[in-house]
Amino acid sequence: MRRTNQPAPQSLTAFLPGEDPAGHQVDRGVGRSATGGPHVLQPIGRVESPLVDRDLAPKQGDEGSPYAWLIFEPAVREGLRDLEIGSDAIVLTWLDRARRDVLVVHPRGDPARRQEGVFSTRSPDRPNPIGLHRVEIVSIDGVRIRVRNLEALDGTPILDVKPVLHQGDER
Amino acid sequence: MRRTNQPAPQSLTAFLPGEDPAGHQVDRGVGRSATGGPHVLQPIGRVESPLVDRDLAPKQGDEGSPYAWLIFEPAVREGLRDLEIGSDAIVLTWLDRARRDVLVVHPRGDPARRQEGVFSTRSPDRPNPIGLHRVEIVSIDGVRIRVRNLEALDGTPILDVKPVLHQGDER
Repeated sequence: MRRTNQPAPQSLTAFLPGEDPAGHQVDRGVGRSATGGPHVLQPIGRVESPLVDRDLAPKQGDEGSPYAWLIFEPAVREGLRDLEIGSDAIVLTWLDRARRDVLVVHPRGDPARRQEGVFSTRSPDRPNPIGLHRVEIVSIDGVRIRVRNLEALDGTPILDVKPVLHQGDER
Repeated sequence: MRRTNQPAPQSLTAFLPGEDPAGHQVDRGVGRSATGGPHVLQPIGRVESPLVDRDLAPKQGDEGSPYAWLIFEPAVREGLRDLEIGSDAIVLTWLDRARRDVLVVHPRGDPARRQEGVFSTRSPDRPNPIGLHRVEIVSIDGVRIRVRNLEALDGTPILDVKPVLHQGDER
């Protein structure tokens, strides 16, 4: 097995999903795999941004987004250690003000455009409202990372950060 | 509000998260927003692929991935209606055989490479194991969509499909 098998730091173990707020066991499972449901997301941080109103926010990150901060949980600090200032990264968020019961939308919220299936659009409204953002890392201060080109609203939960594999490639 | 406000079809409403298997109310919330926790994913389909062994699967989609099928839930059919054969799409999956308690890994599972923070790698092992795949749509048969360049394992839950905004751009 080509895996990293070092034990998780205690703080991370405590941080990972094991109980929901009502005390029910969720998604920890045997061997700490993610197998089995329900699949419960555990935010690793939050967006701190001047953007607070969905209807005023830019539709895409390079359409007038202000600088924003990614504020990570201290428990995931080790995972951040190789991020570099000046590089681009992909940030996945949970668009917590989206609707999950919508399957067709007017692209870019423009009623003049014909409705399209949500899976052909970047609408935040979709069954699993996961935001996909390509940002540039501007500065790093411990678990606080400042970025450009993030259109997510203030308070949006952060789910993951991934590297851009090849400049201009979307894998 | 620039939103699509048409009522959800009954089948989608029934499909969306409302109760976990134990009968607890989860994540439906007032107004059907995704606000509040826990944030529970509702797979919209599954991958059907000859890839069954994580250790033999290619690390990235264009490194020898076979053709695969995306098998969607009938309830989300309307959302798929504008996907086009020959186009590229971004598929998000839940990497259900990953570990969630890992923060540093050897890149590409190679013990000869120094460990890196997971958020600088595409390791499936990470706190929220969401897979990000750029695929090419080869054919469409109702809710079955055949794709190239998908390295996800057979049975992997599908979370979302998004368009590539600009060829070679990763937003």
